[in-house]
Amino acid sequence: MNILRRGRLGSNVKEDVMKFTTSLEFDKEIFESDILCDIAHTTMLVEQNVISEENGKKIIAELKKIAEQSMESLNLDPSLDDIHMVIESELIKELGEDVAGRMHTGRSRNDEVATDLRLSLRKKVLEIITHLIAMEKNMLRVSREHKETLTVGYTHLQQAQPVTFGHHILSHVSAIERDISRFFDTYNRINISPLGCGAMATTGFNLNRKRTQELLGFYDLIENSMDGVSSRDFVVETMANISMLGTNLSKICEELVVFSSAEFNTIEIANEYTSTSSIMPQKKNPDVAEITRAKLSTLNGELVTVLTIMKALPNTYNRDLQEISPHLWKSVYTLIDSIQMVDGMISTVKVNKERMKENAEKNYSTATELADTLVRECGIAFRMAHGIVGELVKRSIEEKVEIKEIILEVLEKNNLSLSQEKIDTALDPFENVKLRNVIGGPAPKEVERAISSFNEKISSHKEKLDEKIAEIESVKKNLLK
Amino acid sequence: MNILRRGRLGSNVKEDVMKFTTSLEFDKEIFESDILCDIAHTTMLVEQNVISEENGKKIIAELKKIAEQSMESLNLDPSLDDIHMVIESELIKELGEDVAGRMHTGRSRNDEVATDLRLSLRKKVLEIITHLIAMEKNMLRVSREHKETLTVGYTHLQQAQPVTFGHHILSHVSAIERDISRFFDTYNRINISPLGCGAMATTGFNLNRKRTQELLGFYDLIENSMDGVSSRDFVVETMANISMLGTNLSKICEELVVFSSAEFNTIEIANEYTSTSSIMPQKKNPDVAEITRAKLSTLNGELVTVLTIMKALPNTYNRDLQEISPHLWKSVYTLIDSIQMVDGMISTVKVNKERMKENAEKNYSTATELADTLVRECGIAFRMAHGIVGELVKRSIEEKVEIKEIILEVLEKNNLSLSQEKIDTALDPFENVKLRNVIGGPAPKEVERAISSFNEKISSHKEKLDEKIAEIESVKKNLLK
Amino acid sequence: MNILRRGRLGSNVKEDVMKFTTSLEFDKEIFESDILCDIAHTTMLVEQNVISEENGKKIIAELKKIAEQSMESLNLDPSLDDIHMVIESELIKELGEDVAGRMHTGRSRNDEVATDLRLSLRKKVLEIITHLIAMEKNMLRVSREHKETLTVGYTHLQQAQPVTFGHHILSHVSAIERDISRFFDTYNRINISPLGCGAMATTGFNLNRKRTQELLGFYDLIENSMDGVSSRDFVVETMANISMLGTNLSKICEELVVFSSAEFNTIEIANEYTSTSSIMPQKKNPDVAEITRAKLSTLNGELVTVLTIMKALPNTYNRDLQEISPHLWKSVYTLIDSIQMVDGMISTVKVNKERMKENAEKNYSTATELADTLVRECGIAFRMAHGIVGELVKRSIEEKVEIKEIILEVLEKNNLSLSQEKIDTALDPFENVKLRNVIGGPAPKEVERAISSFNEKISSHKEKLDEKIAEIESVKKNLLK
Amino acid sequence: MNILRRGRLGSNVKEDVMKFTTSLEFDKEIFESDILCDIAHTTMLVEQNVISEENGKKIIAELKKIAEQSMESLNLDPSLDDIHMVIESELIKELGEDVAGRMHTGRSRNDEVATDLRLSLRKKVLEIITHLIAMEKNMLRVSREHKETLTVGYTHLQQAQPVTFGHHILSHVSAIERDISRFFDTYNRINISPLGCGAMATTGFNLNRKRTQELLGFYDLIENSMDGVSSRDFVVETMANISMLGTNLSKICEELVVFSSAEFNTIEIANEYTSTSSIMPQKKNPDVAEITRAKLSTLNGELVTVLTIMKALPNTYNRDLQEISPHLWKSVYTLIDSIQMVDGMISTVKVNKERMKENAEKNYSTATELADTLVRECGIAFRMAHGIVGELVKRSIEEKVEIKEIILEVLEKNNLSLSQEKIDTALDPFENVKLRNVIGGPAPKEVERAISSFNEKISSHKEKLDEKIAEIESVKKNLLK
Repeated sequence: MNILRRGRLGSNVKEDVMKFTTSLEFDKEIFESDILCDIAHTTMLVEQNVISEENGKKIIAELKKIAEQSMESLNLDPSLDDIHMVIESELIKELGEDVAGRMHTGRSRNDEVATDLRLSLRKKVLEIITHLIAMEKNMLRVSREHKETLTVGYTHLQQAQPVTFGHHILSHVSAIERDISRFFDTYNRINISPLGCGAMATTGFNLNRKRTQELLGFYDLIENSMDGVSSRDFVVETMANISMLGTNLSKICEELVVFSSAEFNTIEIANEYTSTSSIMPQKKNPDVAEITRAKLSTLNGELVTVLTIMKALPNTYNRDLQEISPHLWKSVYTLIDSIQMVDGMISTVKVNKERMKENAEKNYSTATELADTLVRECGIAFRMAHGIVGELVKRSIEEKVEIKEIILEVLEKNNLSLSQEKIDTALDPFENVKLRNVIGGPAPKEVERAISSFNEKISSHKEKLDEKIAEIESVKKNLLK
Repeated sequence: MNILRRGRLGSNVKEDVMKFTTSLEFDKEIFESDILCDIAHTTMLVEQNVISEENGKKIIAELKKIAEQSMESLNLDPSLDDIHMVIESELIKELGEDVAGRMHTGRSRNDEVATDLRLSLRKKVLEIITHLIAMEKNMLRVSREHKETLTVGYTHLQQAQPVTFGHHILSHVSAIERDISRFFDTYNRINISPLGCGAMATTGFNLNRKRTQELLGFYDLIENSMDGVSSRDFVVETMANISMLGTNLSKICEELVVFSSAEFNTIEIANEYTSTSSIMPQKKNPDVAEITRAKLSTLNGELVTVLTIMKALPNTYNRDLQEISPHLWKSVYTLIDSIQMVDGMISTVKVNKERMKENAEKNYSTATELADTLVRECGIAFRMAHGIVGELVKRSIEEKVEIKEIILEVLEKNNLSLSQEKIDTALDPFENVKLRNVIGGPAPKEVERAISSFNEKISSHKEKLDEKIAEIESVKKNLLK
Repeated sequence: MNILRRGRLGSNVKEDVMKFTTSLEFDKEIFESDILCDIAHTTMLVEQNVISEENGKKIIAELKKIAEQSMESLNLDPSLDDIHMVIESELIKELGEDVAGRMHTGRSRNDEVATDLRLSLRKKVLEIITHLIAMEKNMLRVSREHKETLTVGYTHLQQAQPVTFGHHILSHVSAIERDISRFFDTYNRINISPLGCGAMATTGFNLNRKRTQELLGFYDLIENSMDGVSSRDFVVETMANISMLGTNLSKICEELVVFSSAEFNTIEIANEYTSTSSIMPQKKNPDVAEITRAKLSTLNGELVTVLTIMKALPNTYNRDLQEISPHLWKSVYTLIDSIQMVDGMISTVKVNKERMKENAEKNYSTATELADTLVRECGIAFRMAHGIVGELVKRSIEEKVEIKEIILEVLEKNNLSLSQEKIDTALDPFENVKLRNVIGGPAPKEVERAISSFNEKISSHKEKLDEKIAEIESVKKNLLK
Repeated sequence: MNILRRGRLGSNVKEDVMKFTTSLEFDKEIFESDILCDIAHTTMLVEQNVISEENGKKIIAELKKIAEQSMESLNLDPSLDDIHMVIESELIKELGEDVAGRMHTGRSRNDEVATDLRLSLRKKVLEIITHLIAMEKNMLRVSREHKETLTVGYTHLQQAQPVTFGHHILSHVSAIERDISRFFDTYNRINISPLGCGAMATTGFNLNRKRTQELLGFYDLIENSMDGVSSRDFVVETMANISMLGTNLSKICEELVVFSSAEFNTIEIANEYTSTSSIMPQKKNPDVAEITRAKLSTLNGELVTVLTIMKALPNTYNRDLQEISPHLWKSVYTLIDSIQMVDGMISTVKVNKERMKENAEKNYSTATELADTLVRECGIAFRMAHGIVGELVKRSIEEKVEIKEIILEVLEKNNLSLSQEKIDTALDPFENVKLRNVIGGPAPKEVERAISSFNEKISSHKEKLDEKIAEIESVKKNLLK
């Protein structure tokens, strides 16, 4: 039975209610963090002379033992509510209440769980960044491989202008760079310590909050005790980041589906990421891209869940907050799985270069360059050139003739002239691409530069990441041994 | 290995991809439905001479055997994708491919899974209605018990007018009545058969769709084959109903939390639905009401998930649809659990009659009736009476005197008069309540009538419900024996 | 100044606060309904002898005058809060408070606004159905026109099986049929009267709620007074229906965008629904389909808004409810506009029959029928046939040969034989389509039957719709003249 | 007529389509930004010798003229699509196409609108921060005023431990500090330049992207051209921040509603933020807090809207993106209005000190301190002390006696003793508060320190803010004069 109920509430409990209210199922995510939190708190209590060194040593020794076991080996009776009480019960069983019952001095489950969540989440955020960096590297490899693979770019899903597939891939790297930057910013708002806030009003014991902050590797305190136990904005912020990243990844999935259709046929997804039909033997379906697209949609729903839970909750801790955690972890794992699928698909995609080239060469993707050439060579205004080329395209479609066949006639009608060489260059899609060498353009040389620049950024992320990983590993090492 | 891959795709599979794409985890929800669907389809294939009676018999016998086992006893290799292939594999293992391989004739997993979902969901909807009726009955009991328990009603969380707690409880029954009506309407749109739609174009085999509709107890066909395999609006509609019901239940939870605060103190939640603090020994917290309130919030998130998944998916079946199912079942179970918690809390709530009466007697909740009395007795316009009583209340607060002490003076100032008896009656909250006996009013007599009327409605729901339960039980009995 | 404040609160008001709180901007949606509600209420008050016939006549005459003016011609001072007070102020200005001040007897703005919302919304729901029927008719016309237009159907956006474009269009009609049925069901839950519920406890005046129900053309009462003023589930239900319909329409928009891409090229959107680029003169972009797709996405956001507002609001009326209305109307208008755009685009779409035929003829869309033929002609199990044809397709792709060239060899290897005629028929996509004539199949004859059947359903909707329109027109006529 | 249509599409336009697709209604938000963008682009084109100095001067002079007018004074014909074309049309009208038609050289509306959005949004973000700082200052003033105003703090809306109202107010300041920090982080991801990305592939003209970046005061480039025109993550990030801040503010609104109820009665909202009832003359309703709570809910819906619009959009610009803007601006304005309402309510709130004190003195809020005292004075474990005090509270409630009356007896039974002085101190709520002086605790001295610390942080925000405001003012000054 839960030791907490012996006072005020008595032993009256219902099986279904306990199952409904327990958090033990998802407390596995904070099991290790909870022990680190316990050890740091106990260490500080001893240092502050709140509990004796002897009692402190016994408690910490027992906590280390528990840490070595798996959570499953403990008594997970749902009447114990949560992992905090499971661990305290285990301690009491081993050390007796007179010793073990001192660990919770000057602390509440309210500041404890907030601390645990922050410890566990900071680790997950670093894991996400790790996966993103791995994917970026693969993308940069594919990009470099295809920096001269001519294809057409789209606006409104209509063929727009010639680019390379390498340039296209870089657009995704570019977006993910911002995702990484967001996660690093958020890390700073996660990694602050609420420990010592108590139930909501700190405590009369002479705690040293700065010391537990330091022991647990937090960057700072979340000072105000009422804010410390009730704020979950760090969860929402992480989940919002996850939704934004998910949106970026859903774009890639959509492209994988559309581009691998028989009609587009510019890429082929590796067999292991596809499946066939139970009835149509010819089918090779982009199932993984579809499921990933769908799973990424669930991230938005999870975000709504958490925002709705938190709507208009008054100060301070309300038990509603417990229900946030499973949705946070669900989002994190869905995201990590999805990154790996996208990474796998991009890394193994087969590019149909011929079809890409064919797309770039027909359907007027060079029309803009033709208009630009008129501006440069004939000195007319861009808007006029736009009108003339628009007219050219219209006639070409309606009369089913090539632009090349009617351009001279149309130019003449407009009192303009252009050498055949200039015309040919303007209408050559790869020449178009090479010409677009301003910063961020598709010209192979510029793409090469961009790849190098992204590689440098990734190196710098990696350094920052490794530093943070080292920080939290060292916390664990110090506290557990 | 999945038999489907032997043709087009080869055996190249990845463990993590299979784990990512398999639906086996939540296919337990459609296990029984899938077998019913298989048997109905096979029965019809035999009747239509598409497969031989002998083969049909063997397949059906084997399917019945599988139905008797639990799903867990089958080979749940994730490479088998889903429950359909697990069952087909089991059949092939027992009967050989030459017999078992005939079951899927003229069918696709696309129409099969849509059929299964509808079969399983209709059952769940009836389960939800069953729980709602049980809760309504308890509410009506509490309402009758408290039809004379004077309390104050709120608008803007400000004390408004006297009512009874019985009347208040009826307001929740009234809302849930509409929830039940919505679920019954939705049932008709769930209970239609897509079986025979095939992959998306029906089939060239001479199927009899009306026959499988009948065997499976569907009310009608969803005819168009492309719509049949791709529509999931019945899922969204169910989940929207769930969100609406969840919103109604969240109102009850909020009231339980607010009314059981020390400040309101009008109700006490039974001990088994509360818990205490790990640090504050005096606490009795409304944890179950809070967690229920939070879990009901997740229903909105799940709805968003499903709507987002379905956004802008072109015809017809896309694998994204698979990801809808776990969220549907999650919503259904969360709802059912939550109904039971709300039912339990309402059924066992302790009412603090004295505090309720006290609330009704102070803070001017009879001001409206006083104004109304002026209208009736003095013949002045309501808006004038509203102004006079407003002035009375203002003076009473500012001068810290009772209305009774200053009313005569104020009336005189306005050239009005009212007998002491009329004043006393107007200011007596229980007289206020008794007077409000128009349809839907709080007068005990009217509440008694309303309870009877709700009881009749519930009886009629129950009849309709039992009929539908009987229908689907008979389908099961006929097909499995 | 607002007459209501003269009592309790005094004249202290702030400009920015009034602008923040007023609902006058979107009260235009309930202007007419409010007057109808006032007239019905006043008529009943006279009949029940609560106010004199003379006063009642004056009030009603003045209300009719106001109804003839536009809302804009009234004094829309934001300090008046809302349209109810604007109208009451106008009455007071014309008739004096002693007469006009009697209209609000036995009523509150809480039951009044709930009544108004229901009156206005029922009209909008009928308007939505009207637009849906119009669109369905156009779709059926297009469907009939293309009942023999061979094309390929998709699953997973991969070419699946041959169908006709007419059959494809019918899939959308089929979905919209369910949308209409939902709106009709919802209509019954909208069209119930809360009038007489008062602020939340009805009133001590001898009101006749059944009489105002009848005068306003409501089907029933929402009886319980606390539920009557606080429930907004009819709004959520309507908005959920709107989101479901929006999801169906977003599918059409997605198809318009994808099918009109240069790569698919199976349809061309009419020029008036496209635009070009400011820089790429060749572009013809499906802007209207894209904007519609986006606007339909906003419907989900609006639904979330309303569900979030309503989360955990305790009984009864809370001012939060006011904020629901603008989002309801926004959704309604966005939907109606979007239906018209989709209707316009579908009605004018140009179909590229040659390209559609080409799609149906290549890429193995007849593979299923080939497998089915092996089942029928050679007596083998479907699963075996599926395997053999899968192998055929694989070799055809890898060896770059037509199926026709290798089929005999493969059949022989499997000890099967098939006449050339059977092979040719199986591989002919239009023969495939003609063969699929089970209910809901793409065979032209079946499509023709389906169109007739849909036409009958539409006629029956139309009848029901016209009846309801007549009901509410007659309410208006009776009350205003 | 729109000049763009003269080429490819012809003049076929429909009134309702134009109204549906135009963005002119919400382009007022980017009117000034668009002109700044035009001037910077033109300046750079001249410097790069893409257009002549003469033409550049004429264009810029005309743009300045337009800037001086209001947008309304221009020709806002919806057929012109958007503000870019309105301005270009105005230029053409004044300067002729041969001059004005050169401005759009090497640019597309795709990079233009992305640039404009970023320019306008950065300004709004600074405006939000400005309002937050103002509110924080008022909160700190109220906090200081009430640093010794004893009250009770809540967990689970149950009275928990004594705090001061000043400490409670600080909890909101603490949360808003993180909101400000998020907006500053986001500012860096908003303030990057996509100008020069063209339609999606940059251009063949020799643009200098770094120069326009500098002229427009951007901190960096968004380099990749495809990402530059299609990314809207800066919008989602801002809106997610807004939702998070909105969640924090909704907590304050909820508290205002609950605390001003007759039952809590700890605060009174200033009259100008309340209203009364049309029927209950005594009512003083917290309407502004309720409407604010509801409006803050709409922020979540707007976020869903934008996330749903962006789901699975392939590269690059799709017209769907246009629909994001009105929802962004709606969110921004709703937020700013809501901050001002919350600020106004907090700044003018009347505190009922007596009632607060009363709350702190009853209902066992000092129980934790009593247990802690047992730990300190008697040397027992906290968990034992927790049990003993729990038992004390239980007996006190059941036997309706004060703790003081039974404590000695209970202590004795447990073989413990405590001096009367220690007991009195432990049970005195203000002594409890004074004792809680660890960092972040409610002790008046610590609150005083925290207020100073927050003041310093605010000063540092203000400095950073002013710097950024100066940056963008100087951009405007340089470009427009």
